[in-house]
Amino acid sequence: MTDARHRLLLVSSSTIHGRGYLDHVADALVAFLSGVKTLTFVPYALADRDGYSASVRERFARLGIEVLSVHQAPDPRAAIRAAEAVFIGGGNTFRLLKWLQDEGLLGPIRDRAAEGMPYVGSSAGTNVAAPSIRTTNDMPIVPTANFLALGLVPYQINPHYLDPDPASTHKGETREERLLQYLEESPVPVVGLREAAFLSVEKGVSHLLGERGARGFRRGSPPFEIETGAEVESLLR
Amino acid sequence: MTDARHRLLLVSSSTIHGRGYLDHVADALVAFLSGVKTLTFVPYALADRDGYSASVRERFARLGIEVLSVHQAPDPRAAIRAAEAVFIGGGNTFRLLKWLQDEGLLGPIRDRAAEGMPYVGSSAGTNVAAPSIRTTNDMPIVPTANFLALGLVPYQINPHYLDPDPASTHKGETREERLLQYLEESPVPVVGLREAAFLSVEKGVSHLLGERGARGFRRGSPPFEIETGAEVESLLR
Repeated sequence: MTDARHRLLLVSSSTIHGRGYLDHVADALVAFLSGVKTLTFVPYALADRDGYSASVRERFARLGIEVLSVHQAPDPRAAIRAAEAVFIGGGNTFRLLKWLQDEGLLGPIRDRAAEGMPYVGSSAGTNVAAPSIRTTNDMPIVPTANFLALGLVPYQINPHYLDPDPASTHKGETREERLLQYLEESPVPVVGLREAAFLSVEKGVSHLLGERGARGFRRGSPPFEIETGAEVESLLR
Repeated sequence: MTDARHRLLLVSSSTIHGRGYLDHVADALVAFLSGVKTLTFVPYALADRDGYSASVRERFARLGIEVLSVHQAPDPRAAIRAAEAVFIGGGNTFRLLKWLQDEGLLGPIRDRAAEGMPYVGSSAGTNVAAPSIRTTNDMPIVPTANFLALGLVPYQINPHYLDPDPASTHKGETREERLLQYLEESPVPVVGLREAAFLSVEKGVSHLLGERGARGFRRGSPPFEIETGAEVESLLR
């Protein structure tokens, strides 16, 4: 069960076709971060941390929220411990997890989330909110100590979920096939979050919001549709 | 440089659109395995090892070659040490590497390859011929001790290489973007092997064969085309 104190906004993709950075979730961000003056940003998923944090700072300035990037803090752990709210942005999930591990930030973020601090994740930042990164789409470009992530929700998430394309001539596995292979190795269920969808977690309840819905994956059942507005966790049991 | 004793056939995909299992490389397999009576198969990339080895046994029987699967051998390490030739099939690269590590087969395969034993890899089996699995497309469905693989060639391989689709509305990274992210973290160059293409390694020389060619990726240069018939290693330097 999700910790009732957790407050999470878990976004599949920071952009969707035809819209600008975080535009499709701007209203949800404003509501979720109501009262937050300063957002602590984790840019580790991309190589260009200065460029990344500058663009995130510009985007949130338009929502009236100041951004501090942990990579510019003298003590990143202290920056997390003092954070009003945290945003972990997208990029490569292995690179992100490696740096969260190396900088010792997993514990402090978990502790703050258990105190009710708002957590926003996008793409790789949504992957690391799950128990592990074992359902990321990303290439393992750097080694990590292990695949264990924050575990802020009790299910796995696959961001940028893509439905199988019946017209495809490509022979690499579909996303559905990959997630079914994952379930051969683990009993933890998965939400395949289409790009326009996001999860809101409040008071121990996970709701699917946004557009286009999601696919649910649990051991022993065929994949199933999760409609926008649904309470997700009970469907995955 | 590739060890001049290595004899490798590294296939991108075990099937291509409209053809049966290994049909597009059947002629190349017959020539490469000339004189080989028994092929030792490694089925670890799929969960159903019995089913997988049965279908591989049937396919190679049609080429006049008997198949022994290591998962049915009383001592898998001894089976590799006694192998005339080895075939590692496709599936999930993390699962494959985990079992190669757990069964202690990486060393014996490396030793036999250095003695000139023919090695055939397909998809995940091609990934593990490279120095690491850091350029696999596969989902990290199981943890591995690390990402180090056989290192039978001095470059990375990305099987099932897909060119960017300019018409796509999907916002997940393209394969090209993923491989450029890899080069941010590692200086080892990459061959992006389209599905109909394969690599032949003999006498220390890697040739690109099959159809459709490949993309080359090295640090500090834009991605470039590798034509069928090309000697690959010098292009990657």
